[in-house]
Amino acid sequence: MSLTYGGIDLGGTKIQAIVLDAGGAQVLGSSRRPTPTQGGPKAIVEAMAGALREAAAEAGQPLETLDAVGVGSPGDVDPDTGSVANARNLSGWEGSFQLAAVLSEQVGAKVRVGNDVDVATLAELKLGAGKEAGSLLGVFWGTGVGGGLVLDGELWRGRDGAGEIGHMVVKRKGARCPCGRRGCMEAYAGRKAMEQRARREVERGQKTMLFEIMRERGRDSLSSGVWARALEHGDSLAQRLVDRAVKALGAGVASAVNLLDVELVVIGGGLGTRFGDQMSSRIAEAMRPHLFNDHRPPDVRVAQLGDLGGAIGATLLCGSVAGAQIPVAAERSR
Amino acid sequence: MSLTYGGIDLGGTKIQAIVLDAGGAQVLGSSRRPTPTQGGPKAIVEAMAGALREAAAEAGQPLETLDAVGVGSPGDVDPDTGSVANARNLSGWEGSFQLAAVLSEQVGAKVRVGNDVDVATLAELKLGAGKEAGSLLGVFWGTGVGGGLVLDGELWRGRDGAGEIGHMVVKRKGARCPCGRRGCMEAYAGRKAMEQRARREVERGQKTMLFEIMRERGRDSLSSGVWARALEHGDSLAQRLVDRAVKALGAGVASAVNLLDVELVVIGGGLGTRFGDQMSSRIAEAMRPHLFNDHRPPDVRVAQLGDLGGAIGATLLCGSVAGAQIPVAAERSR
Repeated sequence: MSLTYGGIDLGGTKIQAIVLDAGGAQVLGSSRRPTPTQGGPKAIVEAMAGALREAAAEAGQPLETLDAVGVGSPGDVDPDTGSVANARNLSGWEGSFQLAAVLSEQVGAKVRVGNDVDVATLAELKLGAGKEAGSLLGVFWGTGVGGGLVLDGELWRGRDGAGEIGHMVVKRKGARCPCGRRGCMEAYAGRKAMEQRARREVERGQKTMLFEIMRERGRDSLSSGVWARALEHGDSLAQRLVDRAVKALGAGVASAVNLLDVELVVIGGGLGTRFGDQMSSRIAEAMRPHLFNDHRPPDVRVAQLGDLGGAIGATLLCGSVAGAQIPVAAERSR
Repeated sequence: MSLTYGGIDLGGTKIQAIVLDAGGAQVLGSSRRPTPTQGGPKAIVEAMAGALREAAAEAGQPLETLDAVGVGSPGDVDPDTGSVANARNLSGWEGSFQLAAVLSEQVGAKVRVGNDVDVATLAELKLGAGKEAGSLLGVFWGTGVGGGLVLDGELWRGRDGAGEIGHMVVKRKGARCPCGRRGCMEAYAGRKAMEQRARREVERGQKTMLFEIMRERGRDSLSSGVWARALEHGDSLAQRLVDRAVKALGAGVASAVNLLDVELVVIGGGLGTRFGDQMSSRIAEAMRPHLFNDHRPPDVRVAQLGDLGGAIGATLLCGSVAGAQIPVAAERSR
């Protein structure tokens, strides 16, 4: 009988859990809930266990029967101990917390923790849009802009801080980034920065449906769905800010490609998967004027695993504790 | 008896040749001459052979006794055949030319050809500033700004077009680059772009000693030495344009480090080696406001092999035809 793995993508706004049949790489159940904004790591881990329990119920498998659980987490992850520190976009998680140990007690299975962007990148490489690629750059376009690098079939982590594509400079002395620096790609393209800019423009009298749509949906911030809906309605501020984001992504991703000459760029993240193929074509077009080897641009594709990619990627961590690797879908062609 | 290798760095303005004792990695002789601007590849190869003959004479070894010759070349290099195409900064070298075969006839030894930036980067890794490094970014700051990448002890070439760090965007919609694009790092930091800017400012009435120093030295363009002398004299235009270049390098190199998190940045090239330690410290300082992991910046060092680095690096290609690898100076610590 095939092994069954749990996968959890721990995000700043939501927790996505899945249960996956390791033999066929099939999602058997899934559940999502908001990330608690109070109660610190303890409350967050309880919500993670709860989401995984629901996913297991949907899969018709009690939580206790999972063979292993993988987690993709923000912050500084120690993959050996499963502790996570400095997860600053999670409430009360500035210090170090034994995520693997505490979650393991609650779900009754061994838990492995990896970097969220890395596992999502690996998922696209092994099971998604990057199955044929030897080198790829994952661009996770959401609240911020994260990057995952696969070179020669392997993740490149540098000194454990690689992939900060959102903080590549696209405009020296440019806009202030949520990170505090100036001119970062994320200062134009990150959903948080886009919302800050939209709020400032509204204060100055700019008309927009963005915040009306937000309220109708019972949100308190501009989610990817809110941006998508505003674009559908032809909202001019939304169009202008998305256009600005796409141009920044074009410059920043092209810069990365000029440096690395990867075969493939995969656009994921909340905004990336929500906007889909049409927007990835626009990003490819925005890259073109900046590509040095413009006769041979890389492929630019939307993340195929959509917003389950992080959780599916997290299950790829399970093989090392449960023994069975999830089969990758195709031989790598290099 | 130890083998003796020839190394030639083929540049847009000069040809640097050396003769190297492969056993001790010692330079026995060296010679430099301007790159012919007429006569196409044939004239250039004759000048290369001539420079190597002079270096051999200085080494007290007839050209015919060299065991192998390595060449670092611009353009599209085919390392298997030794042909070079599209070397656009060399006169009349748009098409493909059998560099290895033709030079081999003239020097009476086997010839291997590699990419100029790659061999200079490898030289710094194996014999120069990068001996302890597992990952490094070579930044060759001269007429243009070239990049060489070593990741996990190996050159990263992508699809053979990696390392175009000079064309990373530091200012969207910014200055026009000699490559025709806008806002590239090279548009601010490349010597060619700096000279174009200086000439425009002089046309607009700006005072400077740059062109006076150039004429005194019998030059027709602003060499690295001319820039260095003008700085020594406190020339305000030179100071301003070098400052602008350093800021662009700071943003561009920091962007590359944010993406790759390399251990070490080595600053080489004509301007990089001419300006030396003081300027590499200024570049490190200019990187700092843009570094995401600013608590752990990479080391930034001047290329240790100076302007012989390219030619020394070229000799590293010889081992594959002559049998004896040049010993690297230290075990890699990773």
